[in-house]
This record gives sequence, C-alpha cells and structure tokens, in this order.
Amino acid sequence: MVNKEFVNNMFDVKGKVAIITGATGALGKAVCFGYGHAGMKVMVTGRKEETCRALCDELEAEGIECGYSCGDPAVEEDVIKVVDDTVKKFGEINVLVTSAGYNHPQPIIEQDLSMWKKIMDSDVQGTWLFCKYVGKEMIKQGKGGKVILVSSARSKMGMANYTGYCTAKGGIDLMAQSLACEWTAKYKINVNTINPTVFRSDLTEWMFDPDSEVYKNFLKRLPIGRLGEPEDFVGPCIFLASSASDFMTGANVATEGGYWAN
Amino acid sequence: MVNKEFVNNMFDVKGKVAIITGATGALGKAVCFGYGHAGMKVMVTGRKEETCRALCDELEAEGIECGYSCGDPAVEEDVIKVVDDTVKKFGEINVLVTSAGYNHPQPIIEQDLSMWKKIMDSDVQGTWLFCKYVGKEMIKQGKGGKVILVSSARSKMGMANYTGYCTAKGGIDLMAQSLACEWTAKYKINVNTINPTVFRSDLTEWMFDPDSEVYKNFLKRLPIGRLGEPEDFVGPCIFLASSASDFMTGANVATEGGYWAN
Amino acid sequence: MVNKEFVNNMFDVKGKVAIITGATGALGKAVCFGYGHAGMKVMVTGRKEETCRALCDELEAEGIECGYSCGDPAVEEDVIKVVDDTVKKFGEINVLVTSAGYNHPQPIIEQDLSMWKKIMDSDVQGTWLFCKYVGKEMIKQGKGGKVILVSSARSKMGMANYTGYCTAKGGIDLMAQSLACEWTAKYKINVNTINPTVFRSDLTEWMFDPDSEVYKNFLKRLPIGRLGEPEDFVGPCIFLASSASDFMTGANVATEGGYWAN
Amino acid sequence: MVNKEFVNNMFDVKGKVAIITGATGALGKAVCFGYGHAGMKVMVTGRKEETCRALCDELEAEGIECGYSCGDPAVEEDVIKVVDDTVKKFGEINVLVTSAGYNHPQPIIEQDLSMWKKIMDSDVQGTWLFCKYVGKEMIKQGKGGKVILVSSARSKMGMANYTGYCTAKGGIDLMAQSLACEWTAKYKINVNTINPTVFRSDLTEWMFDPDSEVYKNFLKRLPIGRLGEPEDFVGPCIFLASSASDFMTGANVATEGGYWAN
Repeated sequence: MVNKEFVNNMFDVKGKVAIITGATGALGKAVCFGYGHAGMKVMVTGRKEETCRALCDELEAEGIECGYSCGDPAVEEDVIKVVDDTVKKFGEINVLVTSAGYNHPQPIIEQDLSMWKKIMDSDVQGTWLFCKYVGKEMIKQGKGGKVILVSSARSKMGMANYTGYCTAKGGIDLMAQSLACEWTAKYKINVNTINPTVFRSDLTEWMFDPDSEVYKNFLKRLPIGRLGEPEDFVGPCIFLASSASDFMTGANVATEGGYWAN
Repeated sequence: MVNKEFVNNMFDVKGKVAIITGATGALGKAVCFGYGHAGMKVMVTGRKEETCRALCDELEAEGIECGYSCGDPAVEEDVIKVVDDTVKKFGEINVLVTSAGYNHPQPIIEQDLSMWKKIMDSDVQGTWLFCKYVGKEMIKQGKGGKVILVSSARSKMGMANYTGYCTAKGGIDLMAQSLACEWTAKYKINVNTINPTVFRSDLTEWMFDPDSEVYKNFLKRLPIGRLGEPEDFVGPCIFLASSASDFMTGANVATEGGYWAN
Repeated sequence: MVNKEFVNNMFDVKGKVAIITGATGALGKAVCFGYGHAGMKVMVTGRKEETCRALCDELEAEGIECGYSCGDPAVEEDVIKVVDDTVKKFGEINVLVTSAGYNHPQPIIEQDLSMWKKIMDSDVQGTWLFCKYVGKEMIKQGKGGKVILVSSARSKMGMANYTGYCTAKGGIDLMAQSLACEWTAKYKINVNTINPTVFRSDLTEWMFDPDSEVYKNFLKRLPIGRLGEPEDFVGPCIFLASSASDFMTGANVATEGGYWAN
Repeated sequence: MVNKEFVNNMFDVKGKVAIITGATGALGKAVCFGYGHAGMKVMVTGRKEETCRALCDELEAEGIECGYSCGDPAVEEDVIKVVDDTVKKFGEINVLVTSAGYNHPQPIIEQDLSMWKKIMDSDVQGTWLFCKYVGKEMIKQGKGGKVILVSSARSKMGMANYTGYCTAKGGIDLMAQSLACEWTAKYKINVNTINPTVFRSDLTEWMFDPDSEVYKNFLKRLPIGRLGEPEDFVGPCIFLASSASDFMTGANVATEGGYWAN
C-alpha cells in the first residue's frame, strides 16, 4: 500500500555502496558528490591514482565516506582488483555506475583500426567487464542491486565520424537490456542506462559559447533550451539507485533534454 | 554545484499542486496517495462524484490536503471547469498527471466506429484537452510545471484487437514529445510520459492468477519477473514531478518491468 | 529455393487491384502512376469528383487500368461505398494505400478542439475505417493482401505546434503494428507503414527554396542531402505491395532520407 | 516524373558488383543466388576456401558471374585483400552485404572475455572493416553505392545470455546510421541494415520443430506466423541494392516477421 512510510523512504539510498567508474570525469564526479551527499558510500575508480586520490580528498572534505581503487576499465585484472578492493573496504556493492568512456571522432576511412578499437574497448569492453565482475559479486551477496550504465543520446542517433562512439553506445543500451533479461527476475538486479546529451566538461566547454554556430545548431534540436550540466544527471542516477525505480529495468532513460523527442 | 542542499531537496515536492485525472482508478489512486504523502496538494478528478468524494475522504483521513472536481476528460467544458476549480481552490497548478483511460479490445472488423471513437476520445482527446487547459494556466502563471501523461507499454508495441488502445497510446507518446518541443524551453514546462505494463486493478485482477496461461505467458516477456502493482508507479511519478528530473522532457519513461527491453 | 523464377517474379505486381486514398495528393498521385505503370489496377479515391476524374483521365492516357470512387475517408458510409465500388469494378482488392491526410499546425493553447478533431479524423479515423472495410473484404476473399499506411517521419519525432499531426501519425504506426498482430498469421494480410519526411507538394513547395533558412535547417538533419520528391516513395510502395516483402509486417519503414538516423 | 521507364527499371540491378561477406552461411548464400539471378556479379567471401569455391561452383552452374576471395572479416589485411581482389576481378564495387557473424550465448558471469571479444570482433569489427575499405573504394570510384549491414531483430531487443550478440547488433544499427550521416549526401552511398529474426540454418534447424516449446513460444511473438527462411531476405536485399530505395539511408529495416511490432 502507498502509505507515508513507503513514500518517505523510496528515494532513500543512505548507506548503499556504489562503484563509480570514470569517477574523475565531469559526470562521474557529479555522481560521486550526489551519491555521497545522499549518504551513500562511494568507491571512486579511474585510471590515474593522483586524480582519484584528489577526488577522494574533496569528497571527504564534504564528509562523504569514500575510497578509491585505480585501474583501466578495459583491463580485466584491473576490474577484478577494483571490485575486490570495494568489497574489502565496504563489505558489499549495491550500485554500479559506469561513466568511463572515450571518443575520437574521425571519418571511418581515415580512422585507424587501433583508434576504433580504443573507443570500443574504453566504452564497451570496460562496461562489460564491470558488469561481469560486479554482477558476480551482487549475485553472490544475494541482496539484489542497481546497475546504471552511462550511455548517450548518441546510442540511438548516428553521427558523421562517430562509427566508434555511436556503435559503442548503441551496444551499451542493448547490454543493459540483455542484462535486465538475465538478472532482474532471478537476482533482483535492475540494469538501466541513462542517455545524456552533451554536458559541460573540459572536453565540451567549447560548445557552450552561446554565440557559436555549434551551440545555436544544437539548441535547435534540444527542447530543453540549453545544453547539459553534470548536475543534471544526479537526480536520474539517485532515482535509478533507489527503490523508487524498482519496477524499471532494461530501460534506456532519456536524460537528454528532449533530444530524442524531435 | 552538487552540494548537500541541492541533493537533499531534489525530490522534495512539498506544497506543489497536482491535478490527477482518472484519480479513482488503480494507478490514479496510488498517485494521489503518493503525491499526498509526499506533501503535495491533490486535485482529484473523475467522472463520478461519489467515487471522487469517497477518495477525498480517504486522502483526508491520512492528512492529505485535497479537493475534487468532477467531469468527463473528453468534454471540453468539463475540463475547463476542473482547471478553474483547481485554481480557485489551490491558487495554482504545478503538476498534471493524466491517468484517465479506456480500452475495449475487439477485432477491427467487429468493432463499431462508435466504440473505437470512445476509446480514442477517452484516451487521446481527454489527454489533449487537459494538456491544453492546464498548459494555458501554467503559461499564465509563468512558473513552469510538470506534465506527466500516462501512456502504456502498448504505445510502442501493437496487439491484436487493440487498434483503438495501441493507436491512442502511440499517439500520446507523440503528444508528449510535441509538447516538450512546444513548451519546455519557452515556459519551463516539462512533459513526459510513463509507460506502464499491465498492473493490478479491478479490470486486470484476473491476469494475476499465477497458474493461468495468460500470466505465465506474460512473465516470459517481463524481465522484472512479475506484473505491476499500482504502487510501482508512485516513484516514477514523484521523480517526474520533482526537480530531480528537470533535464528530462519529451521522454517516454519505460516503467514496464523491462517489457520493451526484450 | 532461390531460383531464377523466384527472383524474377518477386517484384511483379501485375494485375493486382489497389485502392489509393488521398489519390489526388502529391504522394497519392505518384503511387497511382507507379502502381499503374507496374501493371496494377488502380482505384482512385478522394473527396472531389472533379480531381478524381481528372486523375483517372491522366492515368488512362498512359494506358493504366483505373477507376474512381469519391468520398471522405473519415465518413463511414463513404468508405463502405468506395470499397464496394472497387469490388464491383475490379472483382477484388489486393492492396490498400492510405495516403489521405491533413495538418494544421498551431500551438495547442490556440488550437480549437474542432480543428484538432479534424486533423485526427482525417489522419487516424480515415485510416482506421479504410483498414476495417478493406480488411473485411480481404478476409472474405481469403487470398491475403498488402496494406500500406502512409505515416510520417513525424510519427516518432514530436514538433512544436504538431499535437494533432504527430499524435495522429504516432497512432498510425501502432495501428499498423496492431493489425499485423491481428491479421498476418491468420489471413496473410501484411500491414506496414511508410514514413516519409517532407516531400514536394503544393503545400510544401515553399520549403524547397535552397536559399531559405527552413530548407538549410532541414538539410542539416537529412543525411540524404535533399528533401523528398513524390517519386521517392514509389519504390517502397511497390516493394511493400509485392511478394518481395512477404516476410515484413508491422514494420514502420523509414523512407525519410535518414531523418530518424541522426 | 513517374513514367513507365522509371517504374520498370527501379528494381533492376543487372551488372552491379556485390561483395557478400559470410557468403557461405544460410543468409549469405541466399543473397548470392538472389543477386546472381537478378544479374549481379557476386564476390563470395568467407573464411574457408573450400566452401567458398564450392559455392562459386554452384553459382556458376546457374550461369551466375562470380568470384571468391577468402579471409577473416575481423582481420584488416584479409579485408583489404578481398576488396582488392574484387576490384581486380570486376573493376568496381557497387554493393556490400555484410552477413558474416557469430554468436555464443552464455551468462555474462560465465563468459570469458576472450569469447565475448570473439563475438564482438566477428560481428562488429568485421563489419566496420568491410565498411571502411569498401567505402574507401566506393568514394574513389565516385559513383555512389549501396551498403547493407545484416543486423538482427536482436539489435533492439535484449536477451538473457546475449551480452555479446545483442551488444554487437545494437552497435551495427548505429554504425549504419552514422555512415548514412557521413556518406549519403556527400558520396551517394546509402547505408541501411536489415534486421532478421531467426531464420533456418544449420545452427537454428532445431528451433523449427513445430512441436517444440521453443518454436511455439517464438510463434507467439511473431505476427507473421512462422520463422524465417533464408529466401525471405532476398527481396529486401535486392530492394536495398536497387534504385527503388534511393531515398532510404540509415534505416534499420524490420525484416523480422513483425517481431518488433508487438
């Protein structure tokens, strides 16, 4: 029944343990702070120890319980280590957010196979490996879990020079759908994606000049009337980590300012 | 920035005024209680005064601030009256949830035009009219708003004997997408749909017999491993009414247990 | 087996009888000529007798076997009459193409209910009625059939001021999907949509000025690099009327120059 | 204008040169015969010389002009060689059909990274490499072209134990969409996918037992009322290679018996 207690607790994620990949990126960082301020325990992971440690310092300065474990998401042993370190530190894993990713736009006929592989490995293989090893752990724990794959508005919309990135993100949506079929009924692990449009980061800062053609053209396609900010994704990521979304699985959640709507 | 205050307030909907159409149905009722327990003011609407009043009595017994105004969502004057009554009672409208709907499955060659029209009017015209008049009011108020259209998993999946219902729900998704394009950037009104699969109600109770073929067949398609309960939609409806989803508009939010995922 | 005869006959539609609604519109007319030149018998229908007769004269001048029967697709008796006239004239009906439609873009808060209804009736009700009565006839004949509903790229993409048109076209896609579920296995009637982007007609001619902003903006979204011409849809319409597409049903065939792809 | 000549030639593909990857598989073989009987020149490619040669013998016995060049689609040098051999033998390349693929269903937690990579490499990397090198050649030729990627109904529908295959096919749809954006306006190269449901082959023969549960369950989802046969895809593949589909690009063409429709 829909009683007061049910409603008041549905967004409560306090005490849950989350691994965030790509934690030191703009979106990952926002999620770390969002989860932390919501009372979650945050396992930071990324390739560079220095930036991971610095992020942990920032999080701790805000009173957030956290830790870090470094490694390359596309390298199997690294992923195994991050998962192990998390269990050692926090005792369990309840939430996974895969926000690590990479892009390098090029015409296909000019892109080297090695560069295309790098995009695919960073975006798809890294996500697959974290799903595999975190899933293994969640299944062992037997308490269910929430997996949130950061895909992209580009997962359903192609783009010139994006035969790596679009292909990778299109694949990630289906990975989430497949894992939902594989896990949710059996293990109470929900798997969903969020699909952001362009949001502000070091890499995209140049697109935010309101006088530029790129910006103006983008806005014509964006019903929301502005590009994204990292904090725009905190709400959806808490929602998908909470029991408020328990009936959602295998969903590609449009967090793209309406980019898909028109 | 993602600070503690931002995170702690993002799901807070206290004091917001919501109109819920089809309020006395299973899903509508759950949303009324959900919104009410979250501190919102609830305007109940439906066709029968007796059931509307009874629901208000139940809501008030839980300490929820509410009112009702009756009418047929497909009749223009009725909709105008409900909107007016809401503004008179609560001073403004911040959220609209259209959960009124109707279905009557029949092979197309056996379905009378009048029955098909009834489905279309109840499902599409009623939704359009509420969007028009609530939108008008929200635009006048100038404070933005949140519109949540209850569509269906059937909005993207056809079904034999459903040339009314599927057509109607397919239309509603596009109505939301169009309104997102029309309103969000200009008026800060976000328009999204939720798309439930079958959930328990008086009409669907018969499908919940775990020994029946219907139930077993349904479960084969549902990664979540069970059919819906009305309370499953409370979380998504609060989320979409809250600032946590401010970057989402024109989205068809899969609240269907993964029905679309496989 | 894939032998020479199978391959050489798969696109052959000679002798098939087709009803084309909205026959005197730009797309309808192209289909009439396309079907006629491919050897099909063409039943022209539209609201105005004068234009229907004129089109038949043109078709006959090219040696195409045709007839006409006038009426409003949204009026039940008219549809019944057109279907009857077709059977009387040609003995049977093998193909239906519904290309009648209407649009009148307006902000929802400015659009009268009567205008919205006109759009919905022209686009959805007219399509439903033709499906119902042609379907009845095809089922009675027992020889299967091909139904092609002209939807739009707008069936999946919202647009400001299009709460009529987008809603209608979104509905039509689902009508096709539902009819596929209802009819294909049982009666060998395949039901698909084609989903065109903007194509040249009296109404859209103004968009084709290559120096205009409208045109330039459109092209940014269109991978094909140009807007449509009525003849662009002849190939897909013959394909969907032929046995080459026998395994396709319930499909929304993107004939939109890649508009959905990006 | 839609004159007789235009209509009579639109499906004519005589003399075109096509590379078919996975040519010795069930679908690839059907396409080879289909294209050959339609008068196209067929370049057979696959990993095993013996089966390639045998297929060529069969094709030649039917009077089809053909050749073969063997190699692994996931190996760059092999792809370069196949493309070179084709140009050497036939002077140009007009059509590419990538029907090579691989699957090995396993729960993610039991699947070795090496096996997952094998699926991804066979399905995605092989497709990307053929697109790159055939695209390069088509651009050099300057006469446009038609690229048809064989995806799957699984490209939009997840499945338990399919985190390789579904991910791969989801990616392929987006690769086609991206290439459409990259190539069509500029080079007149259209890129589309066909998305088959299960069709008869050595690997799937076991699913075709009409008394089996697998078969019965499948049919409940398939509006067409039967599983696929390789010849079902010949029509769509000729259509997409012909000028009848010149306005289609970036489309994921549902050739799945209505699997997506319900």
